[in-house]
Amino acid sequence: MGMVGGGSDAFIGAIHRRAAFMDNFIELVCGCFSVDPEISRSSGREYFLPGHRIYDSYHDMFEREMQLPEEERMDFVTIVTPNKWHFEPAMMALERGIHVVIDKPMTFSLEEAKQLQQKVEETGLVLALTHVYSGYPAVKEAKARIANGELGNLRKVYVEYTQGWLSQRIELDGGNNAGWRTNPKTTGKAGCMGDIGTHAWHLAEYITGLKVLEVCADLNTYVEGRPVDDDGASLLRLEENVTGVLMATQVATGEANNIRVRIYGDKGGLEWRQMDSNRLILRWGDKPVEELYMGNNEHLSQLAKWNTRTPAGHPEGFIEAFANIYRNFALTVMAKRAGEEPTGLMLDFPTVYDGVRGMEFVETMVKSGYDNDAKWHEWING
Amino acid sequence: MGMVGGGSDAFIGAIHRRAAFMDNFIELVCGCFSVDPEISRSSGREYFLPGHRIYDSYHDMFEREMQLPEEERMDFVTIVTPNKWHFEPAMMALERGIHVVIDKPMTFSLEEAKQLQQKVEETGLVLALTHVYSGYPAVKEAKARIANGELGNLRKVYVEYTQGWLSQRIELDGGNNAGWRTNPKTTGKAGCMGDIGTHAWHLAEYITGLKVLEVCADLNTYVEGRPVDDDGASLLRLEENVTGVLMATQVATGEANNIRVRIYGDKGGLEWRQMDSNRLILRWGDKPVEELYMGNNEHLSQLAKWNTRTPAGHPEGFIEAFANIYRNFALTVMAKRAGEEPTGLMLDFPTVYDGVRGMEFVETMVKSGYDNDAKWHEWING
Amino acid sequence: MGMVGGGSDAFIGAIHRRAAFMDNFIELVCGCFSVDPEISRSSGREYFLPGHRIYDSYHDMFEREMQLPEEERMDFVTIVTPNKWHFEPAMMALERGIHVVIDKPMTFSLEEAKQLQQKVEETGLVLALTHVYSGYPAVKEAKARIANGELGNLRKVYVEYTQGWLSQRIELDGGNNAGWRTNPKTTGKAGCMGDIGTHAWHLAEYITGLKVLEVCADLNTYVEGRPVDDDGASLLRLEENVTGVLMATQVATGEANNIRVRIYGDKGGLEWRQMDSNRLILRWGDKPVEELYMGNNEHLSQLAKWNTRTPAGHPEGFIEAFANIYRNFALTVMAKRAGEEPTGLMLDFPTVYDGVRGMEFVETMVKSGYDNDAKWHEWING
Amino acid sequence: MGMVGGGSDAFIGAIHRRAAFMDNFIELVCGCFSVDPEISRSSGREYFLPGHRIYDSYHDMFEREMQLPEEERMDFVTIVTPNKWHFEPAMMALERGIHVVIDKPMTFSLEEAKQLQQKVEETGLVLALTHVYSGYPAVKEAKARIANGELGNLRKVYVEYTQGWLSQRIELDGGNNAGWRTNPKTTGKAGCMGDIGTHAWHLAEYITGLKVLEVCADLNTYVEGRPVDDDGASLLRLEENVTGVLMATQVATGEANNIRVRIYGDKGGLEWRQMDSNRLILRWGDKPVEELYMGNNEHLSQLAKWNTRTPAGHPEGFIEAFANIYRNFALTVMAKRAGEEPTGLMLDFPTVYDGVRGMEFVETMVKSGYDNDAKWHEWING
Repeated sequence: MGMVGGGSDAFIGAIHRRAAFMDNFIELVCGCFSVDPEISRSSGREYFLPGHRIYDSYHDMFEREMQLPEEERMDFVTIVTPNKWHFEPAMMALERGIHVVIDKPMTFSLEEAKQLQQKVEETGLVLALTHVYSGYPAVKEAKARIANGELGNLRKVYVEYTQGWLSQRIELDGGNNAGWRTNPKTTGKAGCMGDIGTHAWHLAEYITGLKVLEVCADLNTYVEGRPVDDDGASLLRLEENVTGVLMATQVATGEANNIRVRIYGDKGGLEWRQMDSNRLILRWGDKPVEELYMGNNEHLSQLAKWNTRTPAGHPEGFIEAFANIYRNFALTVMAKRAGEEPTGLMLDFPTVYDGVRGMEFVETMVKSGYDNDAKWHEWING
Repeated sequence: MGMVGGGSDAFIGAIHRRAAFMDNFIELVCGCFSVDPEISRSSGREYFLPGHRIYDSYHDMFEREMQLPEEERMDFVTIVTPNKWHFEPAMMALERGIHVVIDKPMTFSLEEAKQLQQKVEETGLVLALTHVYSGYPAVKEAKARIANGELGNLRKVYVEYTQGWLSQRIELDGGNNAGWRTNPKTTGKAGCMGDIGTHAWHLAEYITGLKVLEVCADLNTYVEGRPVDDDGASLLRLEENVTGVLMATQVATGEANNIRVRIYGDKGGLEWRQMDSNRLILRWGDKPVEELYMGNNEHLSQLAKWNTRTPAGHPEGFIEAFANIYRNFALTVMAKRAGEEPTGLMLDFPTVYDGVRGMEFVETMVKSGYDNDAKWHEWING
Repeated sequence: MGMVGGGSDAFIGAIHRRAAFMDNFIELVCGCFSVDPEISRSSGREYFLPGHRIYDSYHDMFEREMQLPEEERMDFVTIVTPNKWHFEPAMMALERGIHVVIDKPMTFSLEEAKQLQQKVEETGLVLALTHVYSGYPAVKEAKARIANGELGNLRKVYVEYTQGWLSQRIELDGGNNAGWRTNPKTTGKAGCMGDIGTHAWHLAEYITGLKVLEVCADLNTYVEGRPVDDDGASLLRLEENVTGVLMATQVATGEANNIRVRIYGDKGGLEWRQMDSNRLILRWGDKPVEELYMGNNEHLSQLAKWNTRTPAGHPEGFIEAFANIYRNFALTVMAKRAGEEPTGLMLDFPTVYDGVRGMEFVETMVKSGYDNDAKWHEWING
Repeated sequence: MGMVGGGSDAFIGAIHRRAAFMDNFIELVCGCFSVDPEISRSSGREYFLPGHRIYDSYHDMFEREMQLPEEERMDFVTIVTPNKWHFEPAMMALERGIHVVIDKPMTFSLEEAKQLQQKVEETGLVLALTHVYSGYPAVKEAKARIANGELGNLRKVYVEYTQGWLSQRIELDGGNNAGWRTNPKTTGKAGCMGDIGTHAWHLAEYITGLKVLEVCADLNTYVEGRPVDDDGASLLRLEENVTGVLMATQVATGEANNIRVRIYGDKGGLEWRQMDSNRLILRWGDKPVEELYMGNNEHLSQLAKWNTRTPAGHPEGFIEAFANIYRNFALTVMAKRAGEEPTGLMLDFPTVYDGVRGMEFVETMVKSGYDNDAKWHEWING
């Protein structure tokens, strides 16, 4: 694995590395960890890389890695930079036959996303998108329960993602993650909706297996002077006559990282909350509420078990959810390389298609969210 | 207290009676408890009424009660019938100088609501509307905290009321409360939005002290053949630049009676859930989440204490919330009769104005909820 | 109903009255509400009693009430005084053919308790003891589940009652409930163990239907200068090879009124917490954890339904739990008076036998709790 | 890192490896993964080891590793075998200058524990004991809060560990972890008390910083035919006049892995539950209950922050708790090797002294738990 971004001054890079290393079949072999070469080099050394595999720019990295013998060269690159710098390194990798892991949203613009899709289709390479919340075992269980019809015909989806950390204009303080996330030049068309709205949307589609068809959104900026949305909500219409609501905000003072989803069908409903991530609540028309606690146990679906690392009653967390994406991605790459068909369990991770839909989500929400006249907006197909 | 409706075959009448009796200054003196005179009579006897104070119709009741000496006559009537039969007995009472307690929504139509308002204003009588959720001590505490500015400038309101009991078409079974609630001839223009949406709306306005200005709603009927909405959601715009979301559904299979509200300002946020009604969650920008458990304790506001009957750590429930409305109403009536000004604490119960706004809410939601073209609909002022 | 104690300066009297009045077949007809005749009289007037039914002493009350015609006279007396003044009014009532409701612990001493038992047996009168926690619907459900064998053969009982209100020596401040509860002259041999340990013990025996046979206790006084225990714990041995632990403390700073019980058998377990009183958690060997929320619903046993006043999902609380004891007691008295056999559902309230066992519990715990040599102490049979 | 035990048929080995790998400075270089050489070899290959570093016995391993150049040789060995096979490989490692990580309880007998202590003292090597629950960030926070006096003078410790997985005699089924844990020849003197009671005890001492002085225990075997205890409880006396209760059971049907601790002082109390491991509940005498959610945030102590890998609101779990022990151990080893003094934060992991006290705990509990005569038993100092 090579890495773009993720210097020792950034938090999400360390999460990616831990997730990648945990299962002992992914190794960091090279990287360009920062736009600042000093930071890149010191970070690389901290990560025990030899000097010649630490690069000052990702252009250098791709060029020089290609000169290495194939068995030494990185198998894939993971890109954990601000959105603005997702596309170029991803495209460079794909053009060189290198698989890609990339943080969400996949790109800065929908146009870029479509180009990546085309390149993936052309090359047959694998691109994984780290919509981490779809990696939690309890989310897998939710998906499996719905897929096997336990909730009956679906009716409602309520998905929300409430944070409070952008409640004040902390992006002016510097030295935090707020800067690039609230700057349209680095984050893209949407602030809150791109950063966390995409997670909420993805979670809804991932668990239900249904696509959003129309939205009716309202986007707001609560913190004065901020040039992007920091709050919003939308009515949703999905396939199969399902309706729903999506809420996302970064100005709900006091909320930490509350992503939560509830889905109801005509036989039952379910609920998952990230801040209580090891529990799946199941509600039924004809029996009491059930609480399913994760860790390997007999009540879990095959899909959840495949993505579980601990025995019953032992919690997993955010890093393990990330690790599930890395592991399934890596198994898929390994299977392909071995000329085998990856199993459905291996293939269960977000791909370039989720990435394109995510950028379509941003486009659709921004269009609807500031339109005070038209009610429903059809999903924008890129 | 006289009663219209609330025979021994109905559940909500018993709740009203217990709430009224609990504090030992309200007595049941007469009633017409059912459209079926047999049931009315047997119910009245069960409630220890003398035969001559049990009536076969409320027309009879009002006529014959007026012939009694004033000190024997009922002081107020409580009306706990289906919506269709709210207006007439309420108007008959007001015309005869009798105060009124009435279940929500106040009337069958907005027009009726306006007439009641006019009559209340004309007569100076007191009309209390049992929006019971505004009677919980933790809801009072929430209101007090916002009123004194602890949350700062408000931003967001999320209010939801999810039930599952109408998930199947049980109104065809008979013998349950579903029949009249899903019949537009007895319930009015809206099903779910009138029955529980009004509660959610009222809770939001009661706690924040802000009025809804515009809605963008989507109403649905999920159970085939049902002639009214059984589900819906709306984006909200309130005064002072607050935005929000209201969700109400009666087809969320497995949900019992989950009314829940979250409100955020620039300093903090709060959350209350009816099914955990003794807890108020307070979230802050600058300190850890606080959980305030009810029962009389030093952390409570005067408003919450006034509406609390138990010592710290001892739960209260639905009946006590009802009882707070009855008690505050009765104290107001008693103060007025004694020629005194009721205190602010006494006057803290929903009145005819909440009732009119509730019917306006129904009108507005129905208009917006089925309009697929226009986005925002202004609040309909009756 | 007559009342001894419960003046407007005391909190528990108001709880008893609300509980008694709620179901509309118990009426307050007389009382002596305080040792201070002024308070007694002003309280009685506040409770709408005619002056001649308000008494300056309970001696007066019993004497003069007996001179009234039988149909006017109180049917039963409720005694809500400090422990020291439980026995005399209870005995006076029983000697005059008046049924009794009495707060726990039943008496000041075991000797007094045995005398009350003898008198109840002699007279055939009914004595109810307000071990309120056994009145909660979820506790009834727990009892019913165990009685019908759902948990299999029982193994473990963990019962705890943690409070923090006596964490400092507030009894010196006056004007609170701490004074008499920490004074051995008014509270009896034990402080914490008499006041709340008895509730914990009773809950364990009530739900399991099993008697404690042996205890191994440790009692402590954490607040300097306090002449009674304010903390303790005990290992337990019950019938049928069940073992357990009882914990009770009033010095666990920050705890409000946390009484909680967990019981396990070889097929499943259950948990109930008073501060979340509407939920019963059921754990199983072969299926996921279930959460049963109260309010009348199809999953409840007949015993729980009988003691439920609200529809599904609508919480009840402390006052309703009290009301269940009053109602079942009153129905029993009415049945007996009518020459009918009370049903099992009516008879489901704590009686003089629970009262005697409660005083035996106090004796046993005090003996064991200060004995540093012998390990197990057999239950002291009075 | 070398490994003894942890073949691909065992669950806890994989947890140890993930914990060790996560932070990218520990590498698996050799191992003997099973008593069955076939399993050892296939496991080693699965873990990407070269054939010559996979051993058929740990005797072989230690012998042949010592013949490698020092810089290739393992730096430490991690021992994740049944208790019976802890001592010998640990001693062999220490005798060869190899640091040790070992699962709890440290040894089969107290005598062995004392020998390891002596050897550690002789050699100056580092031995870490994986009392994993002390590795959770919220537990660190609890320790820090008590250490800085926030709870005031401590009074009470309630610690419990309830599981249900040994509720039936599943050890007869084979193919699970129950076999060696319920066999006194492999597990030692105690079953439940050694396996999970030691965790509960350790958590209590770790958080409070106080030692248990006396116990009064009751041990039981609920499942017929099982030759060791599967349940027990004990009253505790700790230093500084603190008292408490310890409960541990493996036959509480339906419980998963519920280790939970509550500690109270004269200013406040705290509570932590492993199955909700990211929350620390703080209760106070003079302010509302606080809930502190983990992930790096401003309210955390330095000790908790040091052991936190995620941003605020992002859960960590069991593997990260293990990883904290591995990381702190490895940093300590690295510091020592570099001739530096490890910091207090690095040294914060359980050592050979916890291991000896753990075996003393087992001895003391077994002695007290079956003694029906003497009440208090002094802690057995090995």
